[in-house]
Amino acid sequence: MFFLTPVLVAVVCILIVWIFKAADRSPEKKKGELQAWPWVDEDLKDSTDLHQAEEDADEWQEAEEHVEHVLFSHTRYPEKEMVKRSQDFYELLSKRRSVRFISDERVPMEVIDNVIKTAGTAPSGAHTEPWTFVVVKDPDMKHRIRGIIEEEEKINYMKRMGPRWVTDLKRLRTNWIKEYLDSAPVLILIFKQVHGFAANGKKKIHYYNEISVSIACGILLAALQNAGLVTVTTTPLNCGPRLRMLLGRPLREKLLMLLPVGYPSKEATVPDLRRKTLDQIMVTV
Amino acid sequence: MFFLTPVLVAVVCILIVWIFKAADRSPEKKKGELQAWPWVDEDLKDSTDLHQAEEDADEWQEAEEHVEHVLFSHTRYPEKEMVKRSQDFYELLSKRRSVRFISDERVPMEVIDNVIKTAGTAPSGAHTEPWTFVVVKDPDMKHRIRGIIEEEEKINYMKRMGPRWVTDLKRLRTNWIKEYLDSAPVLILIFKQVHGFAANGKKKIHYYNEISVSIACGILLAALQNAGLVTVTTTPLNCGPRLRMLLGRPLREKLLMLLPVGYPSKEATVPDLRRKTLDQIMVTV
Repeated sequence: MFFLTPVLVAVVCILIVWIFKAADRSPEKKKGELQAWPWVDEDLKDSTDLHQAEEDADEWQEAEEHVEHVLFSHTRYPEKEMVKRSQDFYELLSKRRSVRFISDERVPMEVIDNVIKTAGTAPSGAHTEPWTFVVVKDPDMKHRIRGIIEEEEKINYMKRMGPRWVTDLKRLRTNWIKEYLDSAPVLILIFKQVHGFAANGKKKIHYYNEISVSIACGILLAALQNAGLVTVTTTPLNCGPRLRMLLGRPLREKLLMLLPVGYPSKEATVPDLRRKTLDQIMVTV
Repeated sequence: MFFLTPVLVAVVCILIVWIFKAADRSPEKKKGELQAWPWVDEDLKDSTDLHQAEEDADEWQEAEEHVEHVLFSHTRYPEKEMVKRSQDFYELLSKRRSVRFISDERVPMEVIDNVIKTAGTAPSGAHTEPWTFVVVKDPDMKHRIRGIIEEEEKINYMKRMGPRWVTDLKRLRTNWIKEYLDSAPVLILIFKQVHGFAANGKKKIHYYNEISVSIACGILLAALQNAGLVTVTTTPLNCGPRLRMLLGRPLREKLLMLLPVGYPSKEATVPDLRRKTLDQIMVTV
């Protein structure tokens, strides 16, 4: 009897170990699950390579220290003209809508060049310009992009998104069939570069690259609207790695957005949404 | 002797429990360290409240299902005009620079209203419009904002950023003294809302809120440039929670950017940087 007691105690203790470990894991696992935002592409979150590389300081290039500073030349308008210009620009952009029905009519490529040049004027963390705009015109390539996106989107709708998201999108009549990926004459895929390379081949840190590229996209949307072209801002979920490989982009580039660009089709409809009023979005102190 | 064995075994087992627990914790901590990007505001990453809330589905509001769909009305320009418009818009925006020397001359508030209305035309995930623009004109409030930012920025430069970042910024002559926070007639603080509220008080998910608000900022920068005002896109590091509290914004709002807005001061200089050429940022397929 006494001889068995230690064995019994040992068994109890092993059980305690198990219980502790299980208790330890469950919040961790739960945390992991909670952090998995279903609508954020796994590929976008993959910046681990950058962290690893940062460890090895020699691989990273420091910016050149000598940049001349010059007088800033500014175009100033009379007050009345400023008000008029700001009003006109608001009216132009307020007519922008996300259009999901795009005709197959070709668009002037000079305009596409200009709107991308315009996007490239965006500010970026420490002037790193961490963007790549891939313009796809080739019908076969567009169709292969559509194949990948529809395949993944169907899984997103069926499994990854959850019923709330599907309901939130229902009123916009959004689903996994993306006809515009074939019909739009141009697809612009916008990649953020999680790091860059200096002239000597060393890696260059791209500070705030996602915010910078999103700002560039905002300017791109303004430029498209100004030119009379339509698009819809899409973030193809979980398609990043496959589309990156299809387009032969390097690992350091992550797909952030895809814009199908063209003219609206004749029967194009949009949800009759209202925008928030100025006092709902602005606070003055 | 036999009587003491169970006690000994128990002690050994408790030690085993401790060892296991310690081993469990250490990789978790390491992971946490790797994820700490020094240039990303802790406050920006704090979306945990949203995750917690998601557990309780009843708290979350589903979007109204019924939204009418209407014909899209489009303004189309002749091809020649499209090219001209896109060229002109590029030239206008290519003159935009980040200006750190801002005069204290007042600006017409109607223009500020218009540029913020324009920013509010940006697209957003599931049309959630997850932005708040706080316009600060009050000199005392501007000075308190400057106090917070310079205090944190000094720590950033001294401790948080590391020598590489400091070097990368040196050529832009950026440091922790931010005179423009006092001199600029207007500061626009842009908050992203990590979630919203429906009419009935239930929480509403704000999909892709950081990307959406950054796009709105891109449009805001274009609108400011169009009106002849200057700014510099800043991301006050680790100042988010203090500035949010100072301005009385709720916890669900996180500071994403701060734009000091005004006219350039007479002696304003800018670093003589070049932008990448079109073929460095665009790939055609």
